[in-house]
Amino acid sequence: MSDDLLQSDDPARDPAQLAAELARKKYPADLVEALNGLAQDEAAAVLAHLPFDRIIEIFDEPELNDPAGLIRALPEQQAKVLLSGLSADRATDIFQQLPEPVRSRLLNLLDPETKASIESLLKYPPNTAGSLMTTEFVSVPSNWTVEQTLQHIRMVERTRETVYAIYVLDPQKRTLLQVVTLRRLITGEPQASILSVARSPITTTPLADREDVARIISKYDLLAVPVVDEKGRVLGIVTVDDIIDAIVEEGTEDVQKFGGMAAVDEPYMQIGFGQMLYKRAGWLSVLFVSEMLTASAMQYFQSEIEKAVVLTLFIPLIMSSGGNSGSQATSLLIRALALRELRLGDWWRVVLRELPAGITLGAVLGVIGIIRIALWQNLGFFDYGDHWQLVAATVAAALIGIVTFGSLSGSMLPFVLKRFGFDPANASAPFVATLVDVTGLVIYFTVALVFLRGTLL
Amino acid sequence: MSDDLLQSDDPARDPAQLAAELARKKYPADLVEALNGLAQDEAAAVLAHLPFDRIIEIFDEPELNDPAGLIRALPEQQAKVLLSGLSADRATDIFQQLPEPVRSRLLNLLDPETKASIESLLKYPPNTAGSLMTTEFVSVPSNWTVEQTLQHIRMVERTRETVYAIYVLDPQKRTLLQVVTLRRLITGEPQASILSVARSPITTTPLADREDVARIISKYDLLAVPVVDEKGRVLGIVTVDDIIDAIVEEGTEDVQKFGGMAAVDEPYMQIGFGQMLYKRAGWLSVLFVSEMLTASAMQYFQSEIEKAVVLTLFIPLIMSSGGNSGSQATSLLIRALALRELRLGDWWRVVLRELPAGITLGAVLGVIGIIRIALWQNLGFFDYGDHWQLVAATVAAALIGIVTFGSLSGSMLPFVLKRFGFDPANASAPFVATLVDVTGLVIYFTVALVFLRGTLL
Repeated sequence: MSDDLLQSDDPARDPAQLAAELARKKYPADLVEALNGLAQDEAAAVLAHLPFDRIIEIFDEPELNDPAGLIRALPEQQAKVLLSGLSADRATDIFQQLPEPVRSRLLNLLDPETKASIESLLKYPPNTAGSLMTTEFVSVPSNWTVEQTLQHIRMVERTRETVYAIYVLDPQKRTLLQVVTLRRLITGEPQASILSVARSPITTTPLADREDVARIISKYDLLAVPVVDEKGRVLGIVTVDDIIDAIVEEGTEDVQKFGGMAAVDEPYMQIGFGQMLYKRAGWLSVLFVSEMLTASAMQYFQSEIEKAVVLTLFIPLIMSSGGNSGSQATSLLIRALALRELRLGDWWRVVLRELPAGITLGAVLGVIGIIRIALWQNLGFFDYGDHWQLVAATVAAALIGIVTFGSLSGSMLPFVLKRFGFDPANASAPFVATLVDVTGLVIYFTVALVFLRGTLL
Repeated sequence: MSDDLLQSDDPARDPAQLAAELARKKYPADLVEALNGLAQDEAAAVLAHLPFDRIIEIFDEPELNDPAGLIRALPEQQAKVLLSGLSADRATDIFQQLPEPVRSRLLNLLDPETKASIESLLKYPPNTAGSLMTTEFVSVPSNWTVEQTLQHIRMVERTRETVYAIYVLDPQKRTLLQVVTLRRLITGEPQASILSVARSPITTTPLADREDVARIISKYDLLAVPVVDEKGRVLGIVTVDDIIDAIVEEGTEDVQKFGGMAAVDEPYMQIGFGQMLYKRAGWLSVLFVSEMLTASAMQYFQSEIEKAVVLTLFIPLIMSSGGNSGSQATSLLIRALALRELRLGDWWRVVLRELPAGITLGAVLGVIGIIRIALWQNLGFFDYGDHWQLVAATVAAALIGIVTFGSLSGSMLPFVLKRFGFDPANASAPFVATLVDVTGLVIYFTVALVFLRGTLL
């Protein structure tokens, strides 16, 4: 019912009333979902009527649409208190989205400690461990006892993103020595040293890619991984919930790139129309210009085409089969490389699989093609001419060649991209199809010249 | 160095020596990685030399290759103790992979409690909350105090998959009332009721899809979500580390399906060659047979092709542009639907965006096409005939029509699939290309008939 209220287009909605409706929602995530359904000025008006601790909860949710825009709609004093109340990693995310004069002005309003912490996080490139991490973690010196640590956690619990991993530091050098999980901590003897329940930590570095951080967290089933500098000091931690968001985003990027476009971060309906066109037109034009080579290939074989127009009938069919088999092989290999199932040096093992696979798949399609031509010819649906058997043989042989070439080049493309330092996920289906189309035409007409010389050609 | 030893093909390797090397690895995940590099019989021989608690750690890792095969290589008595020692959800995974006579024989060896728990988990369909959940969670009656609960956790900690979420049950009906996180629990007054630190739980049902469970865990930043039956009793919990594995697997499936093949669970090099052919040949043949409609379309326009062979030169170029724009639109919409950014009823908003987007993108390509033809004609690279301007205009107009049709059908296909109860991720790039190719040919020749009637046609 409250959702209906929020969805309605009644212009006379009162922000205070909406806020009262929203305040009844128990979980911040549900509140955010409702706010995302409102226009920005309306959402800002509603926010002004919510209690302050709820506003902080709302801004701590990464799902909130355009938090930077909402912050700018708030009075500056309120924006300052809000940004100080957020977790450091979340505040940094929002600062990153603020345009420049506003960003510096708001940063300067913050207390020196918060400002320094956000400024240090802002300097890490996006999608690195440094940009994902938060500085609100629990650390204790290694000469503390189990009981001292527990007391400390009880005090700081509210201000820490997670207390399930506690980092044990060298009392002098402040370097990371060990890690304790809260579940092991509570089973420890109160007077024993914290080291009695600790074990050696798995760490990452601030410039590690988020995919690598995700792999560590998932491989070792961690709830958080500490980010350490070259001296062994903990800069922050990346928590499992941030990593889940990162994994989902990577999945979206992989699908979008595979679809042949630049990756988009925003939800579909929120991408600006101009930006969407830009992200699509770029690749589309590059592919179009590359695909123009097919016109050149066709021009090269123009005399063959004029002599045997029957050959043109099968061009779309044959070319699409090459693209399809290539796209299958690419999708298999992109993920195998992304999940580190295969290394760069394994390319030859893949060739040894894709070569027989391509020949077999091409032969399957070739047989279907021969049956189709023979049926249409003998049932009188269409007349492929006196030499229809030779035409059918040409089509089948070309299919074997093209599907094999498609499978091989589709599977090798991710390796080639990786070899030259690109993300293998850039090997999109349209990219592979374009690569295979030109060669496919050349294979088709070459096979035709061999099979049909002296008859049609 | 130890990795080199494991990778070498020296046939004289001693399993005991290998086991000693492996036992030095600190983390089970690293041990599993090394074992996965060995042949199955060798891995089984090495396992026989490892301490029993390490073997349990190894089998608890979902990354271990073919655990069912390894279990079968163990003496039956050892297999029994191992399966009893594993977490219930992991043991169930392994039982699922065991072929029938072995499965029942091993199940009957287990103690009645473990057997009942595994049998109840085995009955849930794969990829549901029920199949992912574990029964090793912590629950306490609602009349306990904070201190009683902490004492209980200290006792059962070792045998529970997570103790970070504690489920508070009605003392009589055993239904789920509240949930307490360990971090809140340790901040509670020892003598206070457990309910003083509890809050109402977010739950799921045993038949919920793993994608929905992932969405709940990620939306509410949970470490575990309880699975409850219709009476409100907790059947088990799904933990965040199981969900990460599920999200990564979903991402792989989405890319593979988008690449136009049936999803494969195993790593690339471990898929049987026959199985891989089968998974690829199916879709490839379906697409090939559908794409045969292009041959029919070409046959229909045969007299036009014979009169104006110059038109055939641009067929691959024009068709591929339709397929590429469709593939872009599909990749955008598949993820938008998967992440619930859009609902089924939003299809018309998408049409309102894709229609102008398609026309604009088509016009961009049309202009590039006209420039290409004009350049080649005027620089003398190729002669498109006296009516080359009309040919160029035909190509440009056809591109606008085809790219618009590609964007529209590519964006609507995921909606149509969802409407009829299929996973929108089945809308693969090759599927879209095939859909667009036939219509693309018809659009092209129809435009040609309009533009070239009286001149070339």
